[in-house]
Amino acid sequence: MNSRYLRLMCVLVAIAWHALALSQEYLRIDSGRLNSTMETMKSFGSNSEGGSARVAFSAANAEALDYLSDLMSLAGMTTEIDFAGNLIGTLEGQNTALPALITGSHIDTVPNGGHYDGIVGVMAAIEVARSLSDNNRELQHALEVIVWSNEEGGKTGSRSFNGSIQPRELDLPSLGERTLGEGMAYLGGNPQRLADNRRDPGSMAAYVELHVEQGAVLDDGNIEIGVVEGIVGIRRWNVSVEGFANHAGTTPMAQRQDALVAAAELIIAIRSHITSIAGSQVGTVGRITAEPGAPNVIPGRVLFSLEIRDLSMDKIGSLFAGIEGRAAQIAATTGTTIAFDQFYESPAAPTDPTLQSLVAAAADELGLSHRTMPSGAGHDAQSLAPLGPIAMIFIPSADGISHAPGEYSSPAEIAAGANLLLHTLLRMDEMLQ
Amino acid sequence: MNSRYLRLMCVLVAIAWHALALSQEYLRIDSGRLNSTMETMKSFGSNSEGGSARVAFSAANAEALDYLSDLMSLAGMTTEIDFAGNLIGTLEGQNTALPALITGSHIDTVPNGGHYDGIVGVMAAIEVARSLSDNNRELQHALEVIVWSNEEGGKTGSRSFNGSIQPRELDLPSLGERTLGEGMAYLGGNPQRLADNRRDPGSMAAYVELHVEQGAVLDDGNIEIGVVEGIVGIRRWNVSVEGFANHAGTTPMAQRQDALVAAAELIIAIRSHITSIAGSQVGTVGRITAEPGAPNVIPGRVLFSLEIRDLSMDKIGSLFAGIEGRAAQIAATTGTTIAFDQFYESPAAPTDPTLQSLVAAAADELGLSHRTMPSGAGHDAQSLAPLGPIAMIFIPSADGISHAPGEYSSPAEIAAGANLLLHTLLRMDEMLQ
Repeated sequence: MNSRYLRLMCVLVAIAWHALALSQEYLRIDSGRLNSTMETMKSFGSNSEGGSARVAFSAANAEALDYLSDLMSLAGMTTEIDFAGNLIGTLEGQNTALPALITGSHIDTVPNGGHYDGIVGVMAAIEVARSLSDNNRELQHALEVIVWSNEEGGKTGSRSFNGSIQPRELDLPSLGERTLGEGMAYLGGNPQRLADNRRDPGSMAAYVELHVEQGAVLDDGNIEIGVVEGIVGIRRWNVSVEGFANHAGTTPMAQRQDALVAAAELIIAIRSHITSIAGSQVGTVGRITAEPGAPNVIPGRVLFSLEIRDLSMDKIGSLFAGIEGRAAQIAATTGTTIAFDQFYESPAAPTDPTLQSLVAAAADELGLSHRTMPSGAGHDAQSLAPLGPIAMIFIPSADGISHAPGEYSSPAEIAAGANLLLHTLLRMDEMLQ
Repeated sequence: MNSRYLRLMCVLVAIAWHALALSQEYLRIDSGRLNSTMETMKSFGSNSEGGSARVAFSAANAEALDYLSDLMSLAGMTTEIDFAGNLIGTLEGQNTALPALITGSHIDTVPNGGHYDGIVGVMAAIEVARSLSDNNRELQHALEVIVWSNEEGGKTGSRSFNGSIQPRELDLPSLGERTLGEGMAYLGGNPQRLADNRRDPGSMAAYVELHVEQGAVLDDGNIEIGVVEGIVGIRRWNVSVEGFANHAGTTPMAQRQDALVAAAELIIAIRSHITSIAGSQVGTVGRITAEPGAPNVIPGRVLFSLEIRDLSMDKIGSLFAGIEGRAAQIAATTGTTIAFDQFYESPAAPTDPTLQSLVAAAADELGLSHRTMPSGAGHDAQSLAPLGPIAMIFIPSADGISHAPGEYSSPAEIAAGANLLLHTLLRMDEMLQ
């Protein structure tokens, strides 16, 4: 090969590269079409309050999957329902030796939920695939768009990929009429073969999920994009405060062992302790009962829930230790006994730092303002963390409203998120070869 | 009349007076017999926990009344069941122009109650009548011993005397199987003629009731007798705290309007305010719910009960005004709305100061230690307050336990109370002529 030929080749490659880069830079999803498919999705399971009752494994869930499967076919994808009832659309890649890039989210809602939580990520993913097909932009990696089943009722769709579903869970009720096992079968899955849904670590190139924030950080800050640094870990405890039930008329104030007064002091102490340290940790008491629970009886026993979330499980542990210390002081001064019983843990799932940078760079390229933030809510993405690097993109939720008919993200915000998902996948496709 | 005759008469009167005073001073109830009838009463409606399930209008209630009616006959009393199902035993007095002295209490219990609340006052009253008869000690006034029906389920027996029962109450459920109206008829009363049970103000000379304290003031202080200065008034409110329900993972601590944190601050403030002022007032939060009530949702609404009791309704009013002020501050700092809705009021019923002194003097005569104290619990005595002067005598409750199988007062404590009831009635009989 002579040097002139080599120089010509270099110039041609450079031109082609720039052409590719330019086309890539200017490739955009069809925001009108995305907005239209979002609107169509509202019809499956909408309720009289203007919200969505499309709980997992309902008829509305199944009908919506039929619609999505058709959209995937229009995007040139092959489709299947797997054993857990997940709908998987696949766009072949140029290099079949590479593991797939995966994106997706869920379309099931809480019983009186909204039209954006999960749905935005699914509709954007399908629109991204359709835009790639329309523009004949074939990735090196295969692209799987997955509509995870039953996110709201325990993430059983995505958890089937990491093999963490216990057989007894199949008999548990879903948020609708069916058990989880019955629901999987109803959508076309096969709960008997759920173990075969498991995928191995390294079997995917990366997972990226677009989702509404479900909080007000972006909306309050007028920021277009949240680059998610991880999905927080969660620990939950049942807290019992044992005092002494007594007649509210005949027991002087100084002789009381009032379990509710002690519980109130602890609830204040929990908030105070959680907010006494810098960081984005949150602590919540969401449930409380007092026994015997009559206006004229001093509560002898109070039960309440405690939940702490943070990106660091160690920090959750040290926050809890501090709360235990405060509880011991309160028990001593109120004549009560306070006990904590942990009943739930969900480990933190940090996202991949390289992918975070990649999302941020793509956002910069698209001119979208962004900030790094934790996801305080759980997402299907965390189920995929054991299989490979994960990333998440947030768009604003109006007023932070979530799991309610008032959920809202504007068409422009959704389009911005979908374009960022597209460019994140394009960059991943290049970087991860 | 010459002066020698007058002098002789004076000497004779003085001798007779001293003889009467001596016999009166040394007159005592039969404590062995009282203890025995107390034991027999346990057999009517005792439950497997060693307590009493002798709820108003039950078969056990009716059987116990038959037994008590027989005891009253042995004490030389005429007996009747009135329209409300009260059992009334009457011992004639020497001066039929005088209104009756009344004593009594109740024998109905809460569903899993004890063997002392109410029962002590009834058994002591019958024993007092029997002791008077056995010793041929005839009072000037008629003595009525009344076993009030259904104290625990709304004091309908004693309230029939002041005419405050509303017709609609007859259809309300009792603590047993029957409605209140059915229950009155079951015991031999006639709810259709309940209005005729009403007695006029001035129609009784006085009412005195012996009762267990149902608190631990006497037991803790090793004091034998409580001279009751009055039955406290009660006001109850439903308190609502409105915040904003939100996702416990995605809502930063600084953005929360947590109704339970606000409620906890108010519960602490209520206790602090009630105890910041001298006196025996009590304030209680006995019932609480948080909505929606899930560990992973910030409570948007908390409902709880507030009860304040004191001998002075004015003081209850000023305490409540102070609590309203604290609530307004807490609402402002927590971003919540706090509202109070009063749903119950029972007016305070002070006892007669002259009768208090008379009880105290009789206790001194009997060598019984005593203290003045309010009754934090309601009693039949308060229903009688509109009809004439009332008094109440408390004996100790072990550990203050009440409305539970563990209720206990010793035979010696009960005998002391019965003797004080006897001597209180003797002094009243003299004083009120």
